[in-house]
Amino acid sequence: MTRPVARLPRGFQDVAGKKLDLHEKLITKLSEVYRRYGFEQLTTPTIEYSDALGKHLPDQDRPNEGVFAFKDDDEQWLSPRYDLTAPLARYVAQNFTTLSLPYRRFQTGLVFRNEKPGPGRFREFVQFDADTVGTASMAADAEFCMLVADALAALGLKTGEYVVKMNNRKILNGILELVGVPNGPEGDAQRLTVLRAMDKLDRLGPDGVRQLLGAGRKDETGDFTKGAGLDSTGIERILGFLRPAEADRDVVCRSLQTLVQGSRTGEEGVAELAAMDVCLTAAGFATDRVRIDPSVVRGLSYYTGPVFEAELTFQAPGEDGKPIRVGSVGGGGRYDGLVERFLGEEVPATGVSIGVSRLAAALEFKGLLGIAAHHGPVMVLVLDKQALPSYQAMVSELRAHDVRAELYLGDKGMKAQLKYADRRSVPVTVIEGTDERARGEVTLKDMVLGAKMSDAATSREERATHAEQVSVKRADLVAQVKALLARHHH
Amino acid sequence: MTRPVARLPRGFQDVAGKKLDLHEKLITKLSEVYRRYGFEQLTTPTIEYSDALGKHLPDQDRPNEGVFAFKDDDEQWLSPRYDLTAPLARYVAQNFTTLSLPYRRFQTGLVFRNEKPGPGRFREFVQFDADTVGTASMAADAEFCMLVADALAALGLKTGEYVVKMNNRKILNGILELVGVPNGPEGDAQRLTVLRAMDKLDRLGPDGVRQLLGAGRKDETGDFTKGAGLDSTGIERILGFLRPAEADRDVVCRSLQTLVQGSRTGEEGVAELAAMDVCLTAAGFATDRVRIDPSVVRGLSYYTGPVFEAELTFQAPGEDGKPIRVGSVGGGGRYDGLVERFLGEEVPATGVSIGVSRLAAALEFKGLLGIAAHHGPVMVLVLDKQALPSYQAMVSELRAHDVRAELYLGDKGMKAQLKYADRRSVPVTVIEGTDERARGEVTLKDMVLGAKMSDAATSREERATHAEQVSVKRADLVAQVKALLARHHH
Repeated sequence: MTRPVARLPRGFQDVAGKKLDLHEKLITKLSEVYRRYGFEQLTTPTIEYSDALGKHLPDQDRPNEGVFAFKDDDEQWLSPRYDLTAPLARYVAQNFTTLSLPYRRFQTGLVFRNEKPGPGRFREFVQFDADTVGTASMAADAEFCMLVADALAALGLKTGEYVVKMNNRKILNGILELVGVPNGPEGDAQRLTVLRAMDKLDRLGPDGVRQLLGAGRKDETGDFTKGAGLDSTGIERILGFLRPAEADRDVVCRSLQTLVQGSRTGEEGVAELAAMDVCLTAAGFATDRVRIDPSVVRGLSYYTGPVFEAELTFQAPGEDGKPIRVGSVGGGGRYDGLVERFLGEEVPATGVSIGVSRLAAALEFKGLLGIAAHHGPVMVLVLDKQALPSYQAMVSELRAHDVRAELYLGDKGMKAQLKYADRRSVPVTVIEGTDERARGEVTLKDMVLGAKMSDAATSREERATHAEQVSVKRADLVAQVKALLARHHH
Repeated sequence: MTRPVARLPRGFQDVAGKKLDLHEKLITKLSEVYRRYGFEQLTTPTIEYSDALGKHLPDQDRPNEGVFAFKDDDEQWLSPRYDLTAPLARYVAQNFTTLSLPYRRFQTGLVFRNEKPGPGRFREFVQFDADTVGTASMAADAEFCMLVADALAALGLKTGEYVVKMNNRKILNGILELVGVPNGPEGDAQRLTVLRAMDKLDRLGPDGVRQLLGAGRKDETGDFTKGAGLDSTGIERILGFLRPAEADRDVVCRSLQTLVQGSRTGEEGVAELAAMDVCLTAAGFATDRVRIDPSVVRGLSYYTGPVFEAELTFQAPGEDGKPIRVGSVGGGGRYDGLVERFLGEEVPATGVSIGVSRLAAALEFKGLLGIAAHHGPVMVLVLDKQALPSYQAMVSELRAHDVRAELYLGDKGMKAQLKYADRRSVPVTVIEGTDERARGEVTLKDMVLGAKMSDAATSREERATHAEQVSVKRADLVAQVKALLARHHH
């Protein structure tokens, strides 16, 4: 019999240790804030009927990237979900007569993409979404901007380290109408090309966008992307519109109002932004936390009105270790077509999605979420198998006093046990030899200090003082361990 | 274009509201205890190579029940995992040279079974597992009995409401050897039949088990199950062995020692139980929390030594609403073959699995986990659209003081808003009419009291007192809402 090879399919990953703890803590904290906003959690199955999910990803930028699919034993196609929005639409449609609308829900879960994986790009990853279904009120959209800003603040980020930028697709469509892109379906393709070009301002700069708005652009590899074909007046008008505005929201609204004059769609968009501004201002969210930014587009073509994006403004190490501005960690907007797919009736909805993995990495870099380097449990060494009951009793005593603790369960000697403790990120080891037991004492070894001392090129004499080891009364075990842990802010 | 029907594949479910909150809270509390024991969390992908998971479920009782499978674009078969143990084995084998052993991990996640669904039986469900890999020490097995007992206590169950029962497969095998079942692979089939019969003692009683140990048994529907073919001496010996023993663990060990005398395997099993007893006693776990029960078998054939089962001893409503003893909510044991599949070398391992959904239902019945009936957010009504900023400010103020709160986002009138609040399990609504605003006041409506008053057939006069409504100063909003919530233990 041949043995199977222990391996993972490409694009799938195991997550363990500190990274997983960070993700968990992030999701817990986000959930707290979302609940505080009145959102109720929902889980839907990982696997749904493929036709209920829709055949393609809604992201028009990746038309060839798809979903996994397989046949159930009744020959119907099943798929692991590719996002949390399509299942929400199915859920709302299925429960439409009994659900109390407006329906606010948040959901976190794994989603699957049958696409080519790359660095930092997986075929299974976590999404964290919140949506409000069944209301056309701009108060719902404003609420998402507040929610995201409050969530980022609750995670420990300071005002200025993050900002929520909002915009409205109708304003964009109005401007496009004014530069000659038709506002009906016949303008869809050209409009999408323009929106995609605008979305690349951060990455390509004004010159790159200028090319993509005009005839097209050849990138470094020589690949040519066809442009939107606007004339130079139109191009400059759009680039002017994209200029970042750090002014107060009501000031920006007034200047946008001038820009869209003559387009009813555009004016509607400005009015919607102004309505959001009223809510945000009443709730005490100033421009330093939520501001209007006409360059925010969001890639998904299904957005119909307000769009918003949460950005971290500081730098953190990127894929290659070099510091780059973190940028977008989530965003969303208003969409109306998703539930209509099932019901044939338009159901207004708006929502936001957070990129868990990216946000967690940025928070870890900032030293937030508070997971210490030595985050393992306290470990009791086993030096004498006959004394196992004594070691076991110590572990249980620590646990009973809410100290994370473990008994060494292997069969190696003291040196190997200390090495094991080190690799397990253990902050304190408890050592009880025969002589110590006779004296009613135990030795505590501060592994954090120990690591520092061996890192620093301390002299042999210094190390010989064993400053990282302390002998304590057995009866004081719990108190002394807690004191050592407190020293390192555990 | 035809519209897709919004529906779920059979055996899959949405979970929302209180039920989901219960599951979440249960998993959070379990995780805390597992971490306190030094277990580190791991997540593995939902989808793995089918050959890495193994082609069949390890549960020999259901040989035809299988896994979902589909081909990746490189023609290799992929499957959603059917449990968390097979992926653990793959993970350990894949990282064998770098992993620090013994490796303690816990994992919670969804697993998938391509089998016929039924009431309470889904094709996707949550498992909560912990395993220790790379140690043959009985201290590891004893630790799982402690872990589960402590977890159930941490969830609020009292000693006596739960018990962890432990046993050892080697004792069973020793007894079987003594009654004529060969101890090698040639006895495998007969041994399994005997174990399965023993496992049914609770359900069928001694007479049913007697038939299954002998020639066989015909059930109520007339189906015949072939028996193990033991002679009557053997049958009675096994039934005698199964008699429940409530005595202290060391007393039971001594009596088991007499029973297995002459079988080396059996004596090994008793010695292992005795070693677990030493650890449990040192850790302060008395017989009322962890006891030896020779009738504990556990269905899976891969267990090789200690087996244990956690039982709730009280009654709770079953599938049909009638009260039944909750019984097993989890269990586990020692297994050695799983990692060997990959490495060709035996790696000792032991672990435990908790049935999340069953345990959550039992805890809810006991009123534990503390999720109130009116568990929704506080809701601020919108009676006058012009006053939206005022309503929005109140919601934000409540949230800023850690009160879960929401603004009504629909476009219905006051009566419909109160009905919506009721369906959302809102405990308190905040009402601000034009007159009140002029007076600097708001009305708080206690929805919990309101529900009680309309439940009880209160007289028109009583209801007219509006005891559930109170008018408070706008400036005291937060304090007054908190006081109302505290009244209902929020």
